Formats: sequence, structure tokens, C-alpha cells
Amino acid sequence: MTQKFDNPSSVLKTIELLGDKWTILIIRDAFQGIKTFERFQENLKIASNILSDRLKNLVKQGVLQKNQNPEDGRRFIYEFTEMGLDLYPVIVTLMTWGDRWLEDETGPYMKLYHKNCNTPLKPVLNCAHCNKEVHARDIKYEVQQKF
Amino acid sequence: MTQKFDNPSSVLKTIELLGDKWTILIIRDAFQGIKTFERFQENLKIASNILSDRLKNLVKQGVLQKNQNPEDGRRFIYEFTEMGLDLYPVIVTLMTWGDRWLEDETGPYMKLYHKNCNTPLKPVLNCAHCNKEVHARDIKYEVQQKF
Repeated sequence: MTQKFDNPSSVLKTIELLGDKWTILIIRDAFQGIKTFERFQENLKIASNILSDRLKNLVKQGVLQKNQNPEDGRRFIYEFTEMGLDLYPVIVTLMTWGDRWLEDETGPYMKLYHKNCNTPLKPVLNCAHCNKEVHARDIKYEVQQKF
Repeated sequence: MTQKFDNPSSVLKTIELLGDKWTILIIRDAFQGIKTFERFQENLKIASNILSDRLKNLVKQGVLQKNQNPEDGRRFIYEFTEMGLDLYPVIVTLMTWGDRWLEDETGPYMKLYHKNCNTPLKPVLNCAHCNKEVHARDIKYEVQQKF
């Protein structure tokens, strides 16, 4: 066995970045269009110092960028970078799984609609090449040798 | 504002279940076909008591089931339930994002191939109804009233 405990795993790295409860809720809210400190705070009932810390960290990690608020040049808005926008499939698959398997009998807290076709969103992970749905059994794994 | 700090969020519930480092690595390895205690331990270099605890919890949560090993009736294998199998899109999107945005210059540790079309896997999240790619900007959110 050459594989080590501390082998690089991008699944692990991602979950370490997202695994903080407030961080994941901030990202979720940002995808719903929230951009200002005040709106995050109002929506999440989060202490200012914690929110400030998590936003700073998301900017440092490259997920959000802090820009001048076009409606008030003395204030700021937080917007996704390309790296942050690319998290959308992660958030949607987490939400979809939780809605399906962890919800109580009152049903999901939030419903998502796909505006393009005006239906409740049912996301599916496809292969960009052949457009077939991706199943675990159809994937071959190749560990890369690193020196 | 009726939305509360502790509002139900399936994103949060899912990340709380998966946010433990060992749990996510066990799930990742299970998707690569690992089923026995010994193989998990060998691959992850994880202490027996921690592995035992995490496997027990995954069985309790309904993600894995503990079955008799068909090759040795005195031993056990851990296999995904339907709930667990349904985590595949979550793991793949986490891995894909990490590979793209968090890897160093040596490239990803693991490469995934889609056996159906024999190409490196590039997953894309589509709407099952209209088959278009799901973008954050095309989603409408509706908060459900709960009483």
C-alpha cells in the first residue's frame, strides 16, 4: 500500500472548506441573491463578528469577492467569483439529497423551480460527453502517481 | 422576517452528516468498491475504534447497511443503501470542484473515467425535465410556509 492517510483528496479539501456551518449557509444565501452584510445577518441571525470572519475567509479562499456597492459607494457587496459560482452544483446536490432523505413529514423548507421550463427542479448529474446520467458503477478510478 | 436562525436547511443537515472528515473518506472509498472493515482500515490508515464508530453511525443514519460477507459467513461487508447510493452526485460534485479549484500544480490525485463513453469524466448538472444545464440564475426559490 503506497496510499497514505494524508493522501491528497479533493473531496476532503472541499468538505473542509465548506464543512463549517455558517460558511455553507452564507454560500446558500448568496446563491439566492443576498449580497450585503446586513442581509446576510438579517437572514441568518448570525453574530456580526462570526459573519465578518466567515465572509473574510470566503474572500481569502477566492469564493467571494468584495466589491463597492453600486448603490452606495461607501458600502460593499459580496459577489461570487467564477470559483464560487462553480459551487452551485455542489449546493444543489447537497440540498436535493437532504430534501429527499433527511426531511421530516412537513416537506422541504425551500422549493426550487427551473425557470427555463417552469417545473420544480429535479437535477441529474450527466456526463458532459455522452449526456448519459452518471452512476457509480460506470466510473473507473485511476490513482495518479505523484513524485 | 419570519425566517429563523434554526430554520430547517437540507443543505446544512447534509453537511452536518457528511462534514466529518472520516465519514466523507469512508463514503468516497465505498464508491470505489471498498466493502470490508480491513480494506477501509488499510486504505485510510484509520484507527479501529474511529472506523468502527463511523461505520456504525453510517449504518444508523441509513447510508450503509451491514451484511454478511458472502465469501465468509462469519464476517461482514458494508454496502450502500439506496439512500447511500444517492450520495454519488454529492461526492462527484465535491471532487470535481476540488480538482478544479483546490489542486496544486501536480494535478488531481485521482482521475475518473466514464466507462460508457471511455472519456475522462466531466460531470454536468442538468434539469431532468428540460435537460438544460442548471445555472444559479435560472432557479427560482420558494420558501414553504410551515405551521
